[in-house]
Amino acid sequence: MSKKTIIVFSGDYDKVMAAFIIANGAAAMDDEVTMFFTFWGLATLRKPATGAAKGKPKSTLQKGFSMMLPASPEKLGLSKFNFGGLGQKMMKKVMKSENVMPISELLATAQEQGIKMIACTMSMDVMGIRAEELIDGIEYAGVATYLGEADEANVNLFI
Amino acid sequence: MSKKTIIVFSGDYDKVMAAFIIANGAAAMDDEVTMFFTFWGLATLRKPATGAAKGKPKSTLQKGFSMMLPASPEKLGLSKFNFGGLGQKMMKKVMKSENVMPISELLATAQEQGIKMIACTMSMDVMGIRAEELIDGIEYAGVATYLGEADEANVNLFI
Amino acid sequence: MSKKTIIVFSGDYDKVMAAFIIANGAAAMDDEVTMFFTFWGLATLRKPATGAAKGKPKSTLQKGFSMMLPASPEKLGLSKFNFGGLGQKMMKKVMKSENVMPISELLATAQEQGIKMIACTMSMDVMGIRAEELIDGIEYAGVATYLGEADEANVNLFI
Repeated sequence: MSKKTIIVFSGDYDKVMAAFIIANGAAAMDDEVTMFFTFWGLATLRKPATGAAKGKPKSTLQKGFSMMLPASPEKLGLSKFNFGGLGQKMMKKVMKSENVMPISELLATAQEQGIKMIACTMSMDVMGIRAEELIDGIEYAGVATYLGEADEANVNLFI
Repeated sequence: MSKKTIIVFSGDYDKVMAAFIIANGAAAMDDEVTMFFTFWGLATLRKPATGAAKGKPKSTLQKGFSMMLPASPEKLGLSKFNFGGLGQKMMKKVMKSENVMPISELLATAQEQGIKMIACTMSMDVMGIRAEELIDGIEYAGVATYLGEADEANVNLFI
Repeated sequence: MSKKTIIVFSGDYDKVMAAFIIANGAAAMDDEVTMFFTFWGLATLRKPATGAAKGKPKSTLQKGFSMMLPASPEKLGLSKFNFGGLGQKMMKKVMKSENVMPISELLATAQEQGIKMIACTMSMDVMGIRAEELIDGIEYAGVATYLGEADEANVNLFI
């Protein structure tokens, strides 16, 4: 039993999927796993919009960024051959027929397995994302927390 | 002498080249190296087409994905400034004049040096790639094998 | 107190920023940090053009590559939603209003904190970048140096 950390910087469907497959695999082998979501990776943690969001008002620029970010993990595009979402839909179909879980299920499994998920607060400020817009059961922290976790881990990936 | 692992997720010429340069450098310093090829990185391990492929029939979607994947490592594009392959050709020309090996030679060197190359079986299913389409001398495994190797290594990269 | 290494392969504003935030965070916690700049990441170390450059003449292809590379770190584009530089300008504006340092300041802080910055000599040859074009206070080395540093580190990232 050891510890692993993964920084999820990317917001590409295929890369986020890879991150969860590694994280869930490690947790299944009794490793302690921390995933640190930053920049485009934050879109993975978005929950479906629930009407008017509360909290600190966003600037126009922040509104722009948060509008461009996919509204939920299943809306993320592929890092290659996305073709406006068509490639992603194709990949999800093949995954289904090959019994590979979509990200929403990988995420639920990660939470069930007790994987610690941290949203990077600095990126949230830059991207204009509020805590109210993210799923429950996650933590909020910055780079110092990440570094503390990484110091205790034997595998640290940046995805 | 220690151990290194590299996940080759990317299928970009420049990134795969970087992966091999690190891997071959470590092997030359007597390190044990494992490269785990997944998603777009699988294209690196393709061998030239040899007529009608055998094995489990592919679905239409799998055919689509495997058709989009470059047919051999020398066909991979750049992650930036690829311009439909022109950028990659330019880079390969400069590499030749500067005596930097192309990927096909880096790969051959890696095999000569005994670097363990693993094709990710789950990605092969999603991408519609069969073992018959990949080069000889590689292994086939999933995330548990990767994690076992990474636990023994002191450097683990995701490229 | 431990050691960290970061390979900065990417030349995207957001990714280079993430690299510096992690590096500066670690240095602030008294870690020894080495950043190894290679391929597109080399653009981070460019200094403003100062008339006719001296040194070994570049081939036409090398001139092409070095022309395509951004002329300074503040000219790097985003990895997503760059829209010809507009996305990057937007992000820099939000960063300013949220008191997040731009890359040029993150870089200066890194140098003040004694972070070791290494330019990859092989990539410099391929990209047609000369030492005279890069900022002062950095080192020049290849993969063997990187591997030596990584062997001593407890966190090694590829960005």
